[in-house]
Amino acid sequence: MRAAVMRDHRLVVEDVPDPTPGPGQVLVKTLACGICGSDLHYLSHLDDMIALAHRTRPGQPTLDPARAVVMGHEFCAEIVDHGPGTQGTHRVGSRVTSMPVVVSAQGIGTVGYSHEYPGGYGELMVLSEGLLLPVPDDVPTHVAALTEPMAVGLHAVNKARITPDDVALVIGCGPIGLSVIAWLKARGVGPILAADFSPARRALAVRMGADEVIDPAQGSPYTRWQDVAWPAGVDRNDALVALSGVKPRPGVVFECVGVPGVLNAIFEGSMRDTRAVVVGVCMDVDRVEPILAIGKELNVQFVLAYTADEFAETLRALASGLVDGTPMVTGRVGLDAVPQAFVDLGNPEAHAKILVEP
Amino acid sequence: MRAAVMRDHRLVVEDVPDPTPGPGQVLVKTLACGICGSDLHYLSHLDDMIALAHRTRPGQPTLDPARAVVMGHEFCAEIVDHGPGTQGTHRVGSRVTSMPVVVSAQGIGTVGYSHEYPGGYGELMVLSEGLLLPVPDDVPTHVAALTEPMAVGLHAVNKARITPDDVALVIGCGPIGLSVIAWLKARGVGPILAADFSPARRALAVRMGADEVIDPAQGSPYTRWQDVAWPAGVDRNDALVALSGVKPRPGVVFECVGVPGVLNAIFEGSMRDTRAVVVGVCMDVDRVEPILAIGKELNVQFVLAYTADEFAETLRALASGLVDGTPMVTGRVGLDAVPQAFVDLGNPEAHAKILVEP
Repeated sequence: MRAAVMRDHRLVVEDVPDPTPGPGQVLVKTLACGICGSDLHYLSHLDDMIALAHRTRPGQPTLDPARAVVMGHEFCAEIVDHGPGTQGTHRVGSRVTSMPVVVSAQGIGTVGYSHEYPGGYGELMVLSEGLLLPVPDDVPTHVAALTEPMAVGLHAVNKARITPDDVALVIGCGPIGLSVIAWLKARGVGPILAADFSPARRALAVRMGADEVIDPAQGSPYTRWQDVAWPAGVDRNDALVALSGVKPRPGVVFECVGVPGVLNAIFEGSMRDTRAVVVGVCMDVDRVEPILAIGKELNVQFVLAYTADEFAETLRALASGLVDGTPMVTGRVGLDAVPQAFVDLGNPEAHAKILVEP
Repeated sequence: MRAAVMRDHRLVVEDVPDPTPGPGQVLVKTLACGICGSDLHYLSHLDDMIALAHRTRPGQPTLDPARAVVMGHEFCAEIVDHGPGTQGTHRVGSRVTSMPVVVSAQGIGTVGYSHEYPGGYGELMVLSEGLLLPVPDDVPTHVAALTEPMAVGLHAVNKARITPDDVALVIGCGPIGLSVIAWLKARGVGPILAADFSPARRALAVRMGADEVIDPAQGSPYTRWQDVAWPAGVDRNDALVALSGVKPRPGVVFECVGVPGVLNAIFEGSMRDTRAVVVGVCMDVDRVEPILAIGKELNVQFVLAYTADEFAETLRALASGLVDGTPMVTGRVGLDAVPQAFVDLGNPEAHAKILVEP
């Protein structure tokens, strides 16, 4: 099959062997697959990722930079064939999506981040029949392909222990931030404030449901957030709250950037008792001043991915229209254009999410 | 009155003017006052604390290093006189304790960290009548003086959202760690693991209720904690949990050290979904690797002090014997010995909590 392949820290489009479905697995044809920021990071920092894997899972096998990896884990696909021991639950030609994991007798493998299971930047994939979710006929393929990134936002919002009174601030309006915004809107949270240096990203944030967008180059999003949360004209002295009962609405902030410095900016800019949800994946060592978080009794919830239930709920929500991820789709390309798409995604003015349609 | 006074970054014992109770305030005689690690920090890092106050509360008055501060905020005291506009709720000669704050027409002041309200390292203090808690006759003075530090532990445990199934790890067995241990025990949490490099502190941890103590020089407390939390003989692969249902008991860890590096050690050593409660006050910039916390979806709750309800509950618990803070009291000194006591507290083998009895 044809695939965009990562090997020796480069992305090349070439022919690779077709995958073969094992027991309980199906062969599928990739219809659409989103390019995720994590994929860009893997391409540029693969050795760091391997070192991290060695450290966090000692003794477990890791990727070999010299061997091919077909990335792509945000997909909608069509059933081509059923492997041995399958039930035939989904007929050939029907559309499905799935969490990007495959279960086998050897354990759990990841689709798009392993040598064994090629992802959606190739024409074919194998998936576990038991994990497949059928895509309803009236749901376009490009919408179903957004299930995975939109599930990330749902999970983050669920972990935030949202209350109707929350004033939410989303820092960073890339695909993760946009997904968080859509789910906050669906949950009835308001107002939703969102901050990004990019005008294009701020415009997308509004389309996804942000009530107010802030350019951090023009003013602190944290100051604006506090101005919204506090009643007007009161002394914002935390020590007085116990006496006066006058306090801000509860604050929740989503870190959707993932670069050093943002977490400490949240420590510095938050209100007392703020819940911070860290969705952005910062791979570098970060510097924080704990005393800032201590004085405000901040709660910091780090999150990753989603549960199976949340993944299925996301597909239902995309189908019903409860959430709409399509504004973030800024481009669609074929396999040959994947390497250029990785480059293009570096410009937030040009792109948010590019779908690969092999 | 006689007092141990901080001025020009030194601690000296000298005569200072008696405080005068203002409206709604009482004059009290200090019977006992614990020396807190924060006081040691203020003495050695006052300029840093002032800089921090300028930063977190711009425009608010701060301490002047050249002016006297009588520290001491963990006290039991005896009513000497009632100021104007008081109710006489507590008769002269009766014993009381209080949160170390005073309410006045000018706002809320802190006892022991301000120029206006001398703390318990002096013979006399003024306190707000409305905040006083009477000390029952059968509660010894040195027990009542532990209300404040023991309330810190209660607050930390309350913020931890404890469940009966938790396996708790307490990092650092100074007074804060010991207080946390006592409250975990009172809440029925078990086993409680506690780690400290000091043999004397580990022995205190056992007396306060730790089920198992660990010397980090001999082995990782995190490894031992995981060994206790996980069922024996299972594959500790988080990815398998969704399939097998085999997972560890929930983990909660209390950071009671407050020096750089501990937070990231918790990130590295924790199990998936661990709740970390940061009780130790780290005043320095700290380095963390967010990716470690992201991969495990850790929750980090920073905490400070306690609520008024928790303070009152602590005194009741000390009175009823539900918690016993007395093992941590390793010394009692008069005012003249306060400067030496500050030095002595630097040795964890010698001391945990020294009470000043003016």
